[in-house]
Amino acid sequence: MTAPKKVVLAYSGGLDTSIILKWLQTEYGCEVITFTADLGQGEELEPARQKAELLGIKPENIHIDDLREEFVRDFVFPMFRANALYEGLYLLGTSIARPLISKRLVEIAREHGADAVAHGATGKGNDQVRFELSCYALDPNIRVIAPWREWDLSSRTKLIEFAEQHQIPIARDKRGEAPFSVDANLLHTSSEGKALEDPAVEAPDYVYQRTANPEDAPDQPEHIEITFTRGDATAINGQEMSPATILTALNEYGRKHGIGRLDFVENRFVGMKSRGIYETPGGTILLEAHRGIEQITLDAGAGHLKDSLMPRYAELIYNGFWFSPEREMLQAAIDKSQEHVTGTVRLKLYKGSVHTVGRWSEHSLYSEAHVTFEDDAGAYDQKDAAGFIRLNALRLKLLAARNGRV
Amino acid sequence: MTAPKKVVLAYSGGLDTSIILKWLQTEYGCEVITFTADLGQGEELEPARQKAELLGIKPENIHIDDLREEFVRDFVFPMFRANALYEGLYLLGTSIARPLISKRLVEIAREHGADAVAHGATGKGNDQVRFELSCYALDPNIRVIAPWREWDLSSRTKLIEFAEQHQIPIARDKRGEAPFSVDANLLHTSSEGKALEDPAVEAPDYVYQRTANPEDAPDQPEHIEITFTRGDATAINGQEMSPATILTALNEYGRKHGIGRLDFVENRFVGMKSRGIYETPGGTILLEAHRGIEQITLDAGAGHLKDSLMPRYAELIYNGFWFSPEREMLQAAIDKSQEHVTGTVRLKLYKGSVHTVGRWSEHSLYSEAHVTFEDDAGAYDQKDAAGFIRLNALRLKLLAARNGRV
Amino acid sequence: MTAPKKVVLAYSGGLDTSIILKWLQTEYGCEVITFTADLGQGEELEPARQKAELLGIKPENIHIDDLREEFVRDFVFPMFRANALYEGLYLLGTSIARPLISKRLVEIAREHGADAVAHGATGKGNDQVRFELSCYALDPNIRVIAPWREWDLSSRTKLIEFAEQHQIPIARDKRGEAPFSVDANLLHTSSEGKALEDPAVEAPDYVYQRTANPEDAPDQPEHIEITFTRGDATAINGQEMSPATILTALNEYGRKHGIGRLDFVENRFVGMKSRGIYETPGGTILLEAHRGIEQITLDAGAGHLKDSLMPRYAELIYNGFWFSPEREMLQAAIDKSQEHVTGTVRLKLYKGSVHTVGRWSEHSLYSEAHVTFEDDAGAYDQKDAAGFIRLNALRLKLLAARNGRV
Amino acid sequence: MTAPKKVVLAYSGGLDTSIILKWLQTEYGCEVITFTADLGQGEELEPARQKAELLGIKPENIHIDDLREEFVRDFVFPMFRANALYEGLYLLGTSIARPLISKRLVEIAREHGADAVAHGATGKGNDQVRFELSCYALDPNIRVIAPWREWDLSSRTKLIEFAEQHQIPIARDKRGEAPFSVDANLLHTSSEGKALEDPAVEAPDYVYQRTANPEDAPDQPEHIEITFTRGDATAINGQEMSPATILTALNEYGRKHGIGRLDFVENRFVGMKSRGIYETPGGTILLEAHRGIEQITLDAGAGHLKDSLMPRYAELIYNGFWFSPEREMLQAAIDKSQEHVTGTVRLKLYKGSVHTVGRWSEHSLYSEAHVTFEDDAGAYDQKDAAGFIRLNALRLKLLAARNGRV
Repeated sequence: MTAPKKVVLAYSGGLDTSIILKWLQTEYGCEVITFTADLGQGEELEPARQKAELLGIKPENIHIDDLREEFVRDFVFPMFRANALYEGLYLLGTSIARPLISKRLVEIAREHGADAVAHGATGKGNDQVRFELSCYALDPNIRVIAPWREWDLSSRTKLIEFAEQHQIPIARDKRGEAPFSVDANLLHTSSEGKALEDPAVEAPDYVYQRTANPEDAPDQPEHIEITFTRGDATAINGQEMSPATILTALNEYGRKHGIGRLDFVENRFVGMKSRGIYETPGGTILLEAHRGIEQITLDAGAGHLKDSLMPRYAELIYNGFWFSPEREMLQAAIDKSQEHVTGTVRLKLYKGSVHTVGRWSEHSLYSEAHVTFEDDAGAYDQKDAAGFIRLNALRLKLLAARNGRV
Repeated sequence: MTAPKKVVLAYSGGLDTSIILKWLQTEYGCEVITFTADLGQGEELEPARQKAELLGIKPENIHIDDLREEFVRDFVFPMFRANALYEGLYLLGTSIARPLISKRLVEIAREHGADAVAHGATGKGNDQVRFELSCYALDPNIRVIAPWREWDLSSRTKLIEFAEQHQIPIARDKRGEAPFSVDANLLHTSSEGKALEDPAVEAPDYVYQRTANPEDAPDQPEHIEITFTRGDATAINGQEMSPATILTALNEYGRKHGIGRLDFVENRFVGMKSRGIYETPGGTILLEAHRGIEQITLDAGAGHLKDSLMPRYAELIYNGFWFSPEREMLQAAIDKSQEHVTGTVRLKLYKGSVHTVGRWSEHSLYSEAHVTFEDDAGAYDQKDAAGFIRLNALRLKLLAARNGRV
Repeated sequence: MTAPKKVVLAYSGGLDTSIILKWLQTEYGCEVITFTADLGQGEELEPARQKAELLGIKPENIHIDDLREEFVRDFVFPMFRANALYEGLYLLGTSIARPLISKRLVEIAREHGADAVAHGATGKGNDQVRFELSCYALDPNIRVIAPWREWDLSSRTKLIEFAEQHQIPIARDKRGEAPFSVDANLLHTSSEGKALEDPAVEAPDYVYQRTANPEDAPDQPEHIEITFTRGDATAINGQEMSPATILTALNEYGRKHGIGRLDFVENRFVGMKSRGIYETPGGTILLEAHRGIEQITLDAGAGHLKDSLMPRYAELIYNGFWFSPEREMLQAAIDKSQEHVTGTVRLKLYKGSVHTVGRWSEHSLYSEAHVTFEDDAGAYDQKDAAGFIRLNALRLKLLAARNGRV
Repeated sequence: MTAPKKVVLAYSGGLDTSIILKWLQTEYGCEVITFTADLGQGEELEPARQKAELLGIKPENIHIDDLREEFVRDFVFPMFRANALYEGLYLLGTSIARPLISKRLVEIAREHGADAVAHGATGKGNDQVRFELSCYALDPNIRVIAPWREWDLSSRTKLIEFAEQHQIPIARDKRGEAPFSVDANLLHTSSEGKALEDPAVEAPDYVYQRTANPEDAPDQPEHIEITFTRGDATAINGQEMSPATILTALNEYGRKHGIGRLDFVENRFVGMKSRGIYETPGGTILLEAHRGIEQITLDAGAGHLKDSLMPRYAELIYNGFWFSPEREMLQAAIDKSQEHVTGTVRLKLYKGSVHTVGRWSEHSLYSEAHVTFEDDAGAYDQKDAAGFIRLNALRLKLLAARNGRV
């Protein structure tokens, strides 16, 4: 395969992607364009610009974008409409960020006439799959370079040597091995690998970077109210906010009360099990609240269909198929269900847990007139239940008679 | 329809089923056989016997059975193998008890040559459906009498009058209206109706009868270890116990730490939404633990299939179709998956929440050799990922090319 | 319940609905509005008008609508986008007509300020459910009258007596029992009941009214080409036609070649099995053709998702839930998948069967460059398959190792 | 990677696998063990033995097994219990044979202490995946060699040269290119590639090798009766036969009447679309018959669950996951449903089509007493339907009221 001429690199400014940057230049002799996204990971981005310049990237080849609103509005919120959980528990915080980064990589490649993009994900994980499936789905002719699968810098020592050879500055604390690997964005922080690799051993508290230890959280519960409009959160305690602002605020509530910690062993798409420590403070609150508002505004038939589609939807996102026809089909179904998911949920936050304690809506389907233990003024005729049960039972009776007969 | 001659009544010993007992006698002139089950609801059963005798039931017509072990072994545990949650959150504590009660009603009817059974569920709820579908599935010729759908005792006043007319003793505290209705068994306690009917209003703390308020729970977390064998819990902290004993012990852990409270609005099978307050202390711990052990012992393909079947399985149980061919088919699939779900989970209990913090098993599928960030000694060839991704991407590329072409 | 004042009756002009018309007048003393739809059942509608007038219906209360285009465009075609088959074989010809009739009943009721609608379906079948669920979903306050469930005209003799008493003209051939019951519309003709009730006995050829006996069909096969645009048939042999015109033309092809006969035992929603003889000549051709065009224009992921959703979609239509949120959610997903289902299919019709023998499209995803046994000029690297397989196998290997170990 | 020492080769005796045999010997210097299976492909196997001997394989290293009964009993029949169709139409004739061949490859490897197996499938198709996933699932340490992905014999010319160099006899008709590629076993014959690569062009009649052209089939229909026992065919016209004998007999019926031809474009697991011509004469009859007997013996709930699981089950088999926990889970569910699928189906075979025209069983759930249009003697109370419909409608009414309100 011929060498690429221009490559857009997903660049964090950290040591690893700086090494990749330099490796692309030296290995291929290609022009490198850096792309650094603010997805709410909580780091300054200007140092990334300075470092890219230091490594010889032309200013017009340095892209730094604040994607927080797009991230929450077009990726996080649509996913939360589905109440998506991978393998019952994981809120997909890393998975949902990859398609957006890929989308921008491909867009920037088009702007610059670049023939390739590159990412810093390893050959063992899910992120390589997510980046590459997304890029190929958006541009079938793009080339994706995954240096970790190609180079021979297979140990920390070799990486450091390469960095030193190429005058890549190395932060003092990056010389040694990090005790585990971290990924963060506005939705979550994940920690995995190394010190966390034995799933039998409880993760030490210092692993958690984004949430208070519940034992240190306030001794008093706090109540908040989240308002939804057509399935998306639009206000907290009556105050309307943009999508990213709302998630930021919920993160702060979650952090304070130690909400959203998860110690999890999951099945990677590439076939192995891995253990991750996830912190999704705002997302955990948001999921509970969304379920709470759906409880009164969503029809049973719609809700049960959603529940049955959810595992597949979550698996698609986890596996990197955000930009696939089947995810879009499921999204169309899910979005259709959210037209009346509008109203307010009251939640109690306390030492690691969040619970719905009240919900109300003009769109409510809850009918006190029907459900009441009191006189229902004819809203419901209990005798109807006899026919309902008898016809539901008919096939079971025919079965029982048959099974008793033969 | 002719009057039944002998009726087996699901009898709690309380005022309502005592009225039913007397109403059956007076309305139909039939012989009544009472059946009172110990499902772990936490009440003495001997008073039920005395009351039945007082109401004129012959001693040989009074059945009092301790069904706790059968309940947990044959109903609760099979259901937990599926990680069943109705509408994402509800652990099905009431639903799962009904089939067993029905099974005994039908068995006792056969022993006595009774031509009917009767239950005390109202015409608005799910329980009537669960009782009747189960009974019909077990005996297609049985007749089921649901007095609440038939009589005209439509107000509290009329019920009390009827009781007084028929010398049914009325406990002092039963004269007035209870503030809400309660159902309990070894798995859970539910409270609903009346004071709880407005889903916007937080349930007052006195509603919770089975769990400490998390704010009053111990300030120190507690760790426990649950061992599973082929999908069922078999030991706590290394001590083997019978199914009912284990659930009883987990209930005590849950009670102490305020675990398993749920304020929920659900969709009843009969078509309306209702609000319930559920307490499932031991079950909530058990679900978390079962998921924890599945994380390392269950294959991804098996797990994802289970996840996709679960909503339908839970709906079947909720709707009363325990004794249906489709529930049995799903059970066969689920049980097949549990053959290696054997191992131990370590959990942290603290102020309302339970989290897996470690899990280990001789049956583990977790391979540190594969997942490690360190040198994996050739266990995994990262270059395989390139082909894996390219073939997964092929259809997406063909799609993108097509969509760009037309 | 008080008597209705104005009732809109789904009126065919036949004896049964004429009796219902008169019964409504005499039983309730209400004003009756008749609604007769042309859904392509192949009968003149003017006689229905004359008969209604004869029975005293005011001209302004007689509605006769040609709904054939709406029927095919808004009901049949959307359903065929899903390749819907109930229980693997039935093309839902009766089921899909009921929602449209119900929609017009409710609309006419609104126009006239009527407080009820009435239909002539019996209490054993699915149609009562389909009519009533549709009406209630479109107007929660409408009252639906089902005379067959209410009156005591329980035998043919009583019906004829009632007709004679009320001067309802009785066609000579309607005095006796019909040998079976027939329903027809542009999509299909169904025959069931009486002479067909024993599912062991082959239906005699005279039951089939809409298709040639394959043995009498032409000895030469015929080829036709159907063009689809976004999932819907839009032309035959290059000639564009409206939806109803296309289905009419396909019916003629199917009739001639004896295509679309089905002898079927199905599960009714009300709990019993029934046997029907269905003729769906054009629909059977259409289904084959739609599958043919999807084969080259629909992505695998989209197609497999569609296949997995189809049984539920078909069941919803069969059970009468066309106007339900879950059917609309599934429709949104299905419609999303059809954006590129555009192209032409070549079919061979011969003595009862229809087979796709060719298909082409500018939207085709079929890539001869990839699939060829010849040199593919690098379109596909066979070595990619090695990595693809190894990662798909990884979990199976880990399983096999585990299962061998314990 | 080191060279394998002993390799078990799936050997047909044809030119391609003879070349592979020699290539393994020359490339790796390894001992080759041949395995040739009789799966009903209709070829003599002794020539394969002679050819293997000619190519220097020791007699004790030549395995020729008649697997026809095992194939039908343990693979084909379990699959037909599910009514499995891939992408709506394909009966999986090739897919279902691969796991059995793989099973024997692994068994023979164990017997001989071989460290590898080899197959002759190319790098573009599904069969490589099916062979390799099956082998790895049965022996995680086995090595699988796929010469087509490794060697440089990339053209017909090079293959013939290699054969001539190594004294591999070349049948006169094998020198040129075959016009298409064929695979056959007792269930089906597939033809694909080359002359069939354009999906727009009708396959010429000479492609079909296993079925009469319907136009040449008998002008008189033929009726046969198939008896099933617990879901499997056990007799034809009352005569009991073994599984392979039954399928052989049905193949002959199908061949004679031109039944089971399919021109199909499918989605391969490796990501591309391909076109195949399939002939499944006996299987097509068997599927129709199995559906026919299920119509009267299978409960609606069980049947609908089966229908919803089928697409996933078929996809698993197509993709090569026969030996996977999820296929086994689905099989457990499907097998559970077949306990009463016992009875007889009468079929009409005529010029390319097969239709059920009657079915009967002691296990029938069909109740003429319930379904009759005549007086049902109280078997069914039509008034029950009113309650059944009203409760099914309740949520739709609440929805309509809500949607009208906001």
